[in-house]
Amino acid sequence: MPAPQPSQPTDPSPLSAPPERGDARRSAPPSAPSPVVPPVLAEVVRSGFVEGRHRGALVVLGADGAVELALGDVTAPVFPRSANKPMQAAGVLRAGLDLSGERLALAAASHSGESFHRDLVRKMLDEYGLDPALLQCPADLPLDPEERDTYLASGASPDRITMNCSGKHTAMLAVCAQRGWPLETYLDPEHPLQRIIHEVVEDAAGEPVAAVGTDGCGAPLMAIGLVGLARAFRSFVGAGPGTAERRVADAMRAHPEYVAGTRRPDTWLMREVPGALSKMGAEAVQAVALPDGRALAFKVEDGATRALGPVLGRALTLVGVEGPVVDRIGRAPLLGGGREVGEIRAAF
Amino acid sequence: MPAPQPSQPTDPSPLSAPPERGDARRSAPPSAPSPVVPPVLAEVVRSGFVEGRHRGALVVLGADGAVELALGDVTAPVFPRSANKPMQAAGVLRAGLDLSGERLALAAASHSGESFHRDLVRKMLDEYGLDPALLQCPADLPLDPEERDTYLASGASPDRITMNCSGKHTAMLAVCAQRGWPLETYLDPEHPLQRIIHEVVEDAAGEPVAAVGTDGCGAPLMAIGLVGLARAFRSFVGAGPGTAERRVADAMRAHPEYVAGTRRPDTWLMREVPGALSKMGAEAVQAVALPDGRALAFKVEDGATRALGPVLGRALTLVGVEGPVVDRIGRAPLLGGGREVGEIRAAF
Repeated sequence: MPAPQPSQPTDPSPLSAPPERGDARRSAPPSAPSPVVPPVLAEVVRSGFVEGRHRGALVVLGADGAVELALGDVTAPVFPRSANKPMQAAGVLRAGLDLSGERLALAAASHSGESFHRDLVRKMLDEYGLDPALLQCPADLPLDPEERDTYLASGASPDRITMNCSGKHTAMLAVCAQRGWPLETYLDPEHPLQRIIHEVVEDAAGEPVAAVGTDGCGAPLMAIGLVGLARAFRSFVGAGPGTAERRVADAMRAHPEYVAGTRRPDTWLMREVPGALSKMGAEAVQAVALPDGRALAFKVEDGATRALGPVLGRALTLVGVEGPVVDRIGRAPLLGGGREVGEIRAAF
Repeated sequence: MPAPQPSQPTDPSPLSAPPERGDARRSAPPSAPSPVVPPVLAEVVRSGFVEGRHRGALVVLGADGAVELALGDVTAPVFPRSANKPMQAAGVLRAGLDLSGERLALAAASHSGESFHRDLVRKMLDEYGLDPALLQCPADLPLDPEERDTYLASGASPDRITMNCSGKHTAMLAVCAQRGWPLETYLDPEHPLQRIIHEVVEDAAGEPVAAVGTDGCGAPLMAIGLVGLARAFRSFVGAGPGTAERRVADAMRAHPEYVAGTRRPDTWLMREVPGALSKMGAEAVQAVALPDGRALAFKVEDGATRALGPVLGRALTLVGVEGPVVDRIGRAPLLGGGREVGEIRAAF
């Protein structure tokens, strides 16, 4: 493995002045590979033979917010995908929606599509008088593989409420309805709600959004660096009581089963580690903040979700989290003929 | 992207003397990352932003068998996974089974689990008087995602006949029954059948097996380099009529729908390009040989199946294959809100 990169000279404070906005989303996105070769974060080991490797970048912030460890290029912009969801939920609050409890956790969720998730999305749509057909997230099957098989076996078909981002879309529609904003264009990056979310992302990350794209669910997606992402999560945990950021963090930590699901690391971690805020994103992104100010963020270069657990498990030990939950998150056995013959294991 | 590595000074001839066997499988498997940083083979592009990369190694052999292009370390051993299946099927023939046509193609298959695959496996088990319970491949759902959803919706459960390797396991059991070899231990690397397959792999690759492991289906798995893998496929296509190798190649090319399935690149390629022999393997391995002696093999370091199509599509153009089938194989759109917003594209 290449040697860790030296710490980046970034301003660790989430309270620094927000950067200038404006032209950020029109700046040219990077298209050439980063000059830093990403180090190996996890190895795929079968029968004692390393048959594959997952590379990526990872940053750890200390309790004071300073970069304590940087593997790979941790300032290059990435799409955080659903790790942006706490910021999107805070944007919905900043726009004026009075959401709390399980409903706010679900607004920040990549839910597993279990029946209790689907039921609460339906209930929220009903409470705000929203027709489910207004949801612009695509019809999908449950995100959780076990739930997906059960769902199909029951004769159910893909639908929008089942899609893992349906809570977020419902909250976005609810605030638009309340504010009298257009419902048809709620996913347009220039829509008033999306402009507010853009501001929340830049405020939390302490850096400008480097590019805007379209997420799998159709929502605008804002690129920031891993240091910015870790800083954003840190700022949510450290925000003052009553702020949008703190309300989102508190709802997610109080109702972690609504943020992910029964068989998901984010839920396990927030349930077992008091005060931890954790959120994964598609294409193997993860961010975690602890109540003492420590935080981490990483992205696996190839986007493999299967590497998330082993890398997260090892990264948690670097911020002092230990115990059965770390082993549970980090364990990724490989099977041969139905028996365990290997594993995906962290390599840093 | 790093510059292509210079061609390796390997002997390209599949007719070179087979290497010494014996201690090869007890040699220590590599456990440190290769000193060669794998070049980027494919980029994940969303909304014009490169959000991920798939690295790997790729070799192209010319019509004379010489290495024409080598990206990354193409001599380091890899587990070919199911790209070993033509060699396993040839081993079954060498052991004495008289298999041909669709049955032989299915013996070399990673089938999609479509009904015509399952029906022929059942028929073969019946023809050889084999109880399906003898199959030691694990119970599984169809490999093809569309077939999988239909299968679950029909109320069916995972079973061994549906598992993509069931044709191979049936052929292995059939020859063991015929030879009076033990059926319970047919997957033991020291079983007479597996020793024959080991010989076929080394003969075809022209290099010793570097490590033996356990494949996902429970069968022994033999590691060779990508040059050896390309050479093996080339030797099958160029083998004399009536040889086990040629019989396997001919059956696969005559019945490509039994080697993969309705929605699979191997089937499309063998159907559209006369004389081409193509087989993918788990963890993003692919090998192809053309009747004029050209061949290619690659492995994506992170094992992402989604990168296979784009990398294969580009690689095919390097061996002179063109036309709609290349575009069809190479196309891997990414969606956002149900609309196409990007793609996985080759980057070499």
